[in-house]
Amino acid sequence: MTKQALIILAEGAEEMEAVITIDTLRRGGIDVVVAGLAGKEVVKCSRMVSILPDTSLEEAQKNSLYDVVILPGGLKGAELLSESQLVGQILKQHEKEGKIVAAICAAPIAFKSHGIASGKSITSYPSMKERLVDTYQYNDGDRVVVDGNVTTSRGPGTAFEFALSLVEQLVGKEVADSLVSQMILKI
Amino acid sequence: MTKQALIILAEGAEEMEAVITIDTLRRGGIDVVVAGLAGKEVVKCSRMVSILPDTSLEEAQKNSLYDVVILPGGLKGAELLSESQLVGQILKQHEKEGKIVAAICAAPIAFKSHGIASGKSITSYPSMKERLVDTYQYNDGDRVVVDGNVTTSRGPGTAFEFALSLVEQLVGKEVADSLVSQMILKI
Ligand SMILES: [Cu+]
Repeated sequence: MTKQALIILAEGAEEMEAVITIDTLRRGGIDVVVAGLAGKEVVKCSRMVSILPDTSLEEAQKNSLYDVVILPGGLKGAELLSESQLVGQILKQHEKEGKIVAAICAAPIAFKSHGIASGKSITSYPSMKERLVDTYQYNDGDRVVVDGNVTTSRGPGTAFEFALSLVEQLVGKEVADSLVSQMILKI
Repeated sequence: MTKQALIILAEGAEEMEAVITIDTLRRGGIDVVVAGLAGKEVVKCSRMVSILPDTSLEEAQKNSLYDVVILPGGLKGAELLSESQLVGQILKQHEKEGKIVAAICAAPIAFKSHGIASGKSITSYPSMKERLVDTYQYNDGDRVVVDGNVTTSRGPGTAFEFALSLVEQLVGKEVADSLVSQMILKI
């Protein structure tokens, strides 16, 4: 069965992190639902790119479980994800069911706010380290950190590696490797 | 004076190439106008990401000249750019005035259609090579090729390098280098 991914887009999301992840997963044959935190309207991202989500988070979460729930970074976007009760509910439910939860750049702060992945090994954008180091085994050295069902990464420049890790976890290394050459990545 | 960039978004554009370029240039302090080829409405990109442009190309081209005109790839998007008389006019005018014209992935085919950059050294997505090799000095070996005022590159995985080359050409190497660490790029 086709794997299902949910990516949650809040105002101020880092548009490269969002779009690289959405596009790479779709190239990997994964169904990706882009859900607007605030509704179905256009989301103004951190560098003023306006993205129209596929649906609202409200609607998207009615469809049972996803294989992965993804939080893009961007400081303002990450703060909004941290403050949303609905995001907390969705993350907790997916974590409990053993699904993958994934966050990049500033977004791991939303894991902390919602009590997700406690004690696990994670990474984030460097400036977020001090907010995370008490709750997690903080990893400075790797560009993508996978600890069980928790995947985290560091910033726009690690977004391809983050997305490829999710592709590998969901549909296998062969597909992920084929995307590296298809996209002309050097990693 | 702040440098001005025009990026032309057609249906079927490669959304990573577009967004990485827009975002990286804006991080570099460059004013970027995202112009919809077909108008001001949402543009459905190659992997179904919907982007709302800042304005229509019709409107955007009324404002005198830009320092760079950028064409993102995506095969369908590149074909539409190739067929547009207005795109041809804009490219010719900017080339004549010594401004930068830049294209990535499949988009160099639009240079060929509009008689831009003839005889120059360029690159493109590998599968476009045979359509370009008669008109240009085709370069297989480099990820970004700069020949005078013409900059070309190969695909989504080279989009950061393409954008950083434009930042360097417009505002200098120091700014471009600072973005590499800010974005946590490994290049
Ligand atoms: Cu970020």
